[in-house]
Amino acid sequence: MKNTKVVLNQRPEGALKESDMVLVEETLPALEDGEVLLEVEHLSVDAFIRTTFDEGAFHGTADLGQPIMALGTARVVDSRFDGLNQGDAVFGPMGAQTHAKLPGAMLQKLDESELPARSFLGVLGLATGMTAYAGMTWVAEVSEGDTVVVSAAAGAVGSCACQVAKNLGARVIGIAGGPAKVDYLVNEIGCDAAIDYKAGDLEGQLSAAAPDGVDVFFDNVGGEILDTLLLHINERARVVICGAVSQYERTGDVRGPSNYLKIPEKNASMLGFTVMRFAEQYPEIQSGITDWVLSGKLKLPEQVENGIDQFPRALTLLFSGGHMGKLLVAP
Amino acid sequence: MKNTKVVLNQRPEGALKESDMVLVEETLPALEDGEVLLEVEHLSVDAFIRTTFDEGAFHGTADLGQPIMALGTARVVDSRFDGLNQGDAVFGPMGAQTHAKLPGAMLQKLDESELPARSFLGVLGLATGMTAYAGMTWVAEVSEGDTVVVSAAAGAVGSCACQVAKNLGARVIGIAGGPAKVDYLVNEIGCDAAIDYKAGDLEGQLSAAAPDGVDVFFDNVGGEILDTLLLHINERARVVICGAVSQYERTGDVRGPSNYLKIPEKNASMLGFTVMRFAEQYPEIQSGITDWVLSGKLKLPEQVENGIDQFPRALTLLFSGGHMGKLLVAP
Repeated sequence: MKNTKVVLNQRPEGALKESDMVLVEETLPALEDGEVLLEVEHLSVDAFIRTTFDEGAFHGTADLGQPIMALGTARVVDSRFDGLNQGDAVFGPMGAQTHAKLPGAMLQKLDESELPARSFLGVLGLATGMTAYAGMTWVAEVSEGDTVVVSAAAGAVGSCACQVAKNLGARVIGIAGGPAKVDYLVNEIGCDAAIDYKAGDLEGQLSAAAPDGVDVFFDNVGGEILDTLLLHINERARVVICGAVSQYERTGDVRGPSNYLKIPEKNASMLGFTVMRFAEQYPEIQSGITDWVLSGKLKLPEQVENGIDQFPRALTLLFSGGHMGKLLVAP
Repeated sequence: MKNTKVVLNQRPEGALKESDMVLVEETLPALEDGEVLLEVEHLSVDAFIRTTFDEGAFHGTADLGQPIMALGTARVVDSRFDGLNQGDAVFGPMGAQTHAKLPGAMLQKLDESELPARSFLGVLGLATGMTAYAGMTWVAEVSEGDTVVVSAAAGAVGSCACQVAKNLGARVIGIAGGPAKVDYLVNEIGCDAAIDYKAGDLEGQLSAAAPDGVDVFFDNVGGEILDTLLLHINERARVVICGAVSQYERTGDVRGPSNYLKIPEKNASMLGFTVMRFAEQYPEIQSGITDWVLSGKLKLPEQVENGIDQFPRALTLLFSGGHMGKLLVAP
């Protein structure tokens, strides 16, 4: 079986370039006992992938010449693993490639009866919808009447986070770059207001959108946006640090929040979490999300790029802000 | 009645200088109804005073020519306020001066039967012992077996914080500058280990003192110390931001914690608080502290500078690290 994989060509310096990655063709060896041959259907384009390109990364470091780490969904083509059969849909660490040969034990068989398989990369994705659900519900503890601000709101986590907060009774303000995203946030995602940070005067826009201050800030960006928000937090505010996409490319030169002394001044908290903390609640989260999706209270628009050769460009899009909703590659 | 007061001479630029303050003599006018004439006995030399010297300060801005804000204890010399009589000990916003004429309603009558009046500026002080007690008990939620690190540990809040954490069953590591303070922390305060940040290699010293990582960091300093500690936090660690003495003099140029992304990575929290959040627990805190003091489980050494003319120097000492325990001025 032929496979086309995307491998790390060189460790990126500064902004990620398409040329940091390169396509390689190979022939996959025969299956061994316990292994499964997969045709990859959708790859999830995630910010954490960028962090694996540096030495000493939290999620593990990518090796030059190995397929770039990526989660995905796939269809079983051939199986020598009990419990997985040809035609089954699975989720797992596919790597950025068209086909994969993996131990069956590393895969999760997917139930496609309610939502399509690719939902497990988006609205039901651990790092996407489930992160947004757990973060808003149990970390930020959003309740009726809270003013909630979400950064990178037009991204996959942000789009879900805005809607989860709405469903919990909050007034929700999304921050994103450009008029198309502002329109998307208000008209597709249902934000009460949206801020275009590229239009300048973030401070003034925030004062206008949240005149009574901010109870919850769900941050995916860091940098200047985090610093500005800190000036607007209310007493007992919760600042949830979900990510810091503005800082991932600044190895060794991360900008810390210089207004962090607002945290003690306001009796506030800066809360970090990873969704794994809520492993015992996964079934509860999944059924909560599925109910909302089926009743129209939660949706995650998808942007699908076709062809494995589009993977490098898609990954750079994630950092240049050139997408809305969930970014997928269909190899 | 003659009064000598310390007034703000000019708004400091950068490091506070004694010459930013100046002594002024005046004659106090006669008491009006509801007022009390006071002889100030002890003034509390606190970091927040520095913050009042800048425009737009959280605790209010000091006016040029007015007595510098300072909390203190005093003896009633004359009273036209029901409920306070000559000889009573009181606590209140005395200002940096030898005598004060204040509305009786602004004063708190002190019970001297168990601990001396000046204890209300130190071990029983809102911003000192009570802050340490509430911060360790209810914000950091220190429990048996935790590894707790305290910065500015030889200061007033730090000295109390170390002992409160010990009394709650933790292993406690204090950080301070210079061998005299390290000796004080281990031999007077009872820390299990102490780190001299001025000796260099903070990272190595911390790895040696806390080889299993840090569960609670109680920070009064910010800057490099906070950044280094963040690299050593354990899963679910609590980083309590009590103050940031290293940053108070860097108006407009505060260094934020560039390693704050360890917070999400470690499922940790950065928690801010002011003691006022725990107003309903004040009686509980006071009786808890008094019991510990009387049973020898909590002490706060005092450094008393004599003479109101020593106030400017004492305040600069607070930022140059030239004191241990509670710094007081006896006018």
